[in-house]
Amino acid sequence: MGSDRRAVILLSGGLDSTVLAAAMLQDGWELSALSVDYGQRHRRELDAAEAVAQALGIPHRILDLSWFASLIPASSQTDRSVPVPHGHYAQATMKVTVVPNRNMVMLSLAAAHALGIGAQAIAIAAHAGDHAIYPDCREEFMRDFLACVRSGNWDADALHLHRPFVAMSKADIARIGCDIGAPTHLTYSCYEGEQVHCGRCGTCVERKEAFDLAGAYDPTEYRA
Amino acid sequence: MGSDRRAVILLSGGLDSTVLAAAMLQDGWELSALSVDYGQRHRRELDAAEAVAQALGIPHRILDLSWFASLIPASSQTDRSVPVPHGHYAQATMKVTVVPNRNMVMLSLAAAHALGIGAQAIAIAAHAGDHAIYPDCREEFMRDFLACVRSGNWDADALHLHRPFVAMSKADIARIGCDIGAPTHLTYSCYEGEQVHCGRCGTCVERKEAFDLAGAYDPTEYRA
Repeated sequence: MGSDRRAVILLSGGLDSTVLAAAMLQDGWELSALSVDYGQRHRRELDAAEAVAQALGIPHRILDLSWFASLIPASSQTDRSVPVPHGHYAQATMKVTVVPNRNMVMLSLAAAHALGIGAQAIAIAAHAGDHAIYPDCREEFMRDFLACVRSGNWDADALHLHRPFVAMSKADIARIGCDIGAPTHLTYSCYEGEQVHCGRCGTCVERKEAFDLAGAYDPTEYRA
Repeated sequence: MGSDRRAVILLSGGLDSTVLAAAMLQDGWELSALSVDYGQRHRRELDAAEAVAQALGIPHRILDLSWFASLIPASSQTDRSVPVPHGHYAQATMKVTVVPNRNMVMLSLAAAHALGIGAQAIAIAAHAGDHAIYPDCREEFMRDFLACVRSGNWDADALHLHRPFVAMSKADIARIGCDIGAPTHLTYSCYEGEQVHCGRCGTCVERKEAFDLAGAYDPTEYRA
């Protein structure tokens, strides 16, 4: 492990980015983790990110963009007056959870940090299950993002956007997490923001399903 | 003038973005101005942005990214221990003034805001004089940025990146500013950050030259 394999990873505190961080550490990457406070409804997932980073022994910073929500219209992810939709994650009703340009903002900050510290990669755990409702989790966006970072900066031609999950399902990720012993018990996915996962919102439904399809042990306590 | 011509403009408090804002208002655009506190050496240019926005009668917000400088290596624009280079702006010595990925971060935030309020455009005053040292002021970057915003968001195909100065010189901009009566006397360009322009740093040299080449009245008081 050395500085020739250094990456800045976006760590949300959810299952996907936690498994990615654990997998990259196993592969010999040296990681710096960034979480972004973009005015989420709750801090619960930022606390989870902090716990995961500690468990993995990687440096972690939370970037304060708490005013970000005021730039955008009401979203269930940033405005407590918008109800959290229940049901399956991939449904059209989940569009209310979209925050415009979120990944571009977060990845742009991660790219600045990566270029600043001389890292070779930025890492993001976007996966195929996100594609239906989040265009900024798709391969096309990832490719365009990297082109933009490269054309906008000196010495960025070698910067890589590590996105190994982009064509995988969340069940694939749960299986990998189980196989490598990622600290999935510390992760948090629920849109409700209570201490215990609600078990009914889109991400809870998706999370349960992922562990189930993977035939992996689900360490999560669900209220429902 | 109506909401069918609404744009979010990045307003630095310098000459270029001030002339762009004034020109767009004359063309019938409704503007919302954003400035970004990215940990600049000084607040002087943010104060200038505020004064310009007031003079033009447009809403203005300063986004707090004051921690941004801590993500990146020492730059003369964010670290007071790095001396400001003197001489002409387009020289290699000016590379120390580059802040990695700065325009991508600022434009990404502007795009989120534009999508959030239903604006049709983001506007930036990057010009040809910046190209030598700032890759994120070039047309190639602008094109890649727009592709990325469009692939990463719903309903962004019609979003436009207004960059009319991208092939112009700063002298062209000074001439336009003079012709349309833009409040250039309120703008601030100096890297030193004192109340009065130093007259010797790269941007001061460039500013003086621009007014001179344009044959336009330079309202600036220079110390040297």
